Amino acid sequence: MKILIAPDSFKESLKASDVAHYIEKGIRRAMPDAECLLSPLADGGEGTVDALVNATGGNILKVPVKDPLMRNINSFFGILGDGRTAVIEMAAASGLELLNEEERDPWITSTYGTGQLIRAALDAGVHRIIIGIGGSATNDGGAGMARALGVKLLDMEGNETGPGGGQAGAIETIDCSGLDKRLPEVAFMVASDVQNPLCGENGASYIYGPQKGASGEMVKKLDSNLRHFGEKMEAVFEKELLEMPGAGAAGGLGAGLVAFLDARIQPGFEIIRELTGLEDKVREADLVITGEGKLDEQTKFGKTPHGVALLSKKYEKPVIAIAGTLGKHYEELYDHGFDALFSITDSPMTLKMAMNDAGRLVENTCYAIFKSISLGRRF
Amino acid sequence: MKILIAPDSFKESLKASDVAHYIEKGIRRAMPDAECLLSPLADGGEGTVDALVNATGGNILKVPVKDPLMRNINSFFGILGDGRTAVIEMAAASGLELLNEEERDPWITSTYGTGQLIRAALDAGVHRIIIGIGGSATNDGGAGMARALGVKLLDMEGNETGPGGGQAGAIETIDCSGLDKRLPEVAFMVASDVQNPLCGENGASYIYGPQKGASGEMVKKLDSNLRHFGEKMEAVFEKELLEMPGAGAAGGLGAGLVAFLDARIQPGFEIIRELTGLEDKVREADLVITGEGKLDEQTKFGKTPHGVALLSKKYEKPVIAIAGTLGKHYEELYDHGFDALFSITDSPMTLKMAMNDAGRLVENTCYAIFKSISLGRRF
Repeated sequence: MKILIAPDSFKESLKASDVAHYIEKGIRRAMPDAECLLSPLADGGEGTVDALVNATGGNILKVPVKDPLMRNINSFFGILGDGRTAVIEMAAASGLELLNEEERDPWITSTYGTGQLIRAALDAGVHRIIIGIGGSATNDGGAGMARALGVKLLDMEGNETGPGGGQAGAIETIDCSGLDKRLPEVAFMVASDVQNPLCGENGASYIYGPQKGASGEMVKKLDSNLRHFGEKMEAVFEKELLEMPGAGAAGGLGAGLVAFLDARIQPGFEIIRELTGLEDKVREADLVITGEGKLDEQTKFGKTPHGVALLSKKYEKPVIAIAGTLGKHYEELYDHGFDALFSITDSPMTLKMAMNDAGRLVENTCYAIFKSISLGRRF
Repeated sequence: MKILIAPDSFKESLKASDVAHYIEKGIRRAMPDAECLLSPLADGGEGTVDALVNATGGNILKVPVKDPLMRNINSFFGILGDGRTAVIEMAAASGLELLNEEERDPWITSTYGTGQLIRAALDAGVHRIIIGIGGSATNDGGAGMARALGVKLLDMEGNETGPGGGQAGAIETIDCSGLDKRLPEVAFMVASDVQNPLCGENGASYIYGPQKGASGEMVKKLDSNLRHFGEKMEAVFEKELLEMPGAGAAGGLGAGLVAFLDARIQPGFEIIRELTGLEDKVREADLVITGEGKLDEQTKFGKTPHGVALLSKKYEKPVIAIAGTLGKHYEELYDHGFDALFSITDSPMTLKMAMNDAGRLVENTCYAIFKSISLGRRF
């Protein structure tokens, strides 16, 4: 029996590769003769590099970069097993998680470090760069990222503007003469499920600004600054950016990546599916097991386990799913490709207990599930 | 596929018959063609009447009796499907649950109501009476029970003694001339897993007295009273009672039942197994599912689900078990006959949430389990 193990991470508890590891342990105890293929997945957010490197047999490289407040930190990106594709998490250089509560301030936070990660990936000689853009601390439209790649963003007096969303409104001239010359030879794909436009009431500043530390008044100014910078980019690159779905992802980094790097924005799962060769793996499996920290009625709107379920149904493969929490109306998922859903909790417990003990719980739950599947084989 | 559904109750949450019902609902959704046989079980304690009546297609009869404090209450007993066997829970007339915290007082509480239930069962014309004796509020050695069946318990002056463990020391004469004449024609079986002797440091008063409301000083006196009454019974009935294992069950009611009714004390599960025809049901099933509120390392010491597992292994039938809580070292149960163990919790939650929602949780868990078993049938 060939079993494909393709979970997302259990956020703040287990990386996808760890989830896959514990699932495998449970299965091996229940079915020693099962053939397990581990393909940890991700959604383009945190954990994407780890999952893709693990799923493809790649490597992680460390890089010193600037954090959102331009302080030096150690960051990383991944080279996939093909040796030609790099994977970057913007959050690893410009993420909200890098700041404490008081430091959050999209007026000054910059995507400069993300640009440095891209430059490091170019240095590694890859032909394709995947950028996951969840969890940003920034609202600068990708201005910092562009600067790190050699672009000059000048104000009315011809001076370079400072970092952060607060300065984006001052940009009058975009000078791309210094832009890294290797960029046109590299394909850029942005993994993002965010559909927001750059500006307006559904734009980056209004929807995501507050959680990054922007007050009501700052939100308005950030929005108008992004509009100004967006219009400048539209003029230089002759691209429709302001209304493009996804332009507002990661504080407008979506727009900047499309403008400066000619990147293509795609749903996270589509990219992950392609990079991990997931479809072939599903086709060759007899059964698929996936999972995520929480599965509920929202899961059917493009979350990774749902993608796995749909792909599995395409090839009529059964799909088991596990989660820490089977949340509101999770039962609906039985109509969306899932054959059986289990929580890993083994008793009434707190969320903290479940998260701290998730490895053991995943393993034990999978042991019981695959013992049950084994029983079924007798009949 | 023939499935035997044989759970114990989920204490303070679902009766065994309800657990069985929800298990069946889950199975039917997953395997519409499965043949389900419901055989709710019990351990001789609370829920025994309900489970046995449900498992055998019997009836419940209501009876007015005296509660432990000799107040009038409505109680009940069961007539099994054979029409010849009655089942009584002593706790339904003389149980701790019938009293609030302040009323608990083994000095005065009486098993009189239990005797009334026995009389009512005799009135119903049964040939066999099963008495489950868990959860008693009493420490009277069965004196009250005997009085309700016509025995006179006289003090040194030849006056009838009062109710309760406090008066048992005053009993000088046991006059059985008025004892119900139908008793010798009826077989009495006591379902009890308690091994305690009547008296001493492992006896009824010392071990169970405190939880029934006895202070340290009262415990001593109750113990000496029980010894006195026990010796009187030994003399009258020419039976070894004081050191008999189980004599101390239910505040010495064990001894009284053996003395006055010639009852046989048996482990609860053995009686339940016999009365429900469990062994035949297991033999005819393809798969067995059982369960209890909590399954842990203690389960293997004679708890009902363990009995089900052992019986199933005898006939090489797979056993699934579900529980609200898979507790400490529950994994050991995989070495004691259980094939797969699942908690019904579907997320981190409180015990109260799990108990309030247990029906839905049992159904959904069984749905997922039997979907998994179904999947296994494909391979």
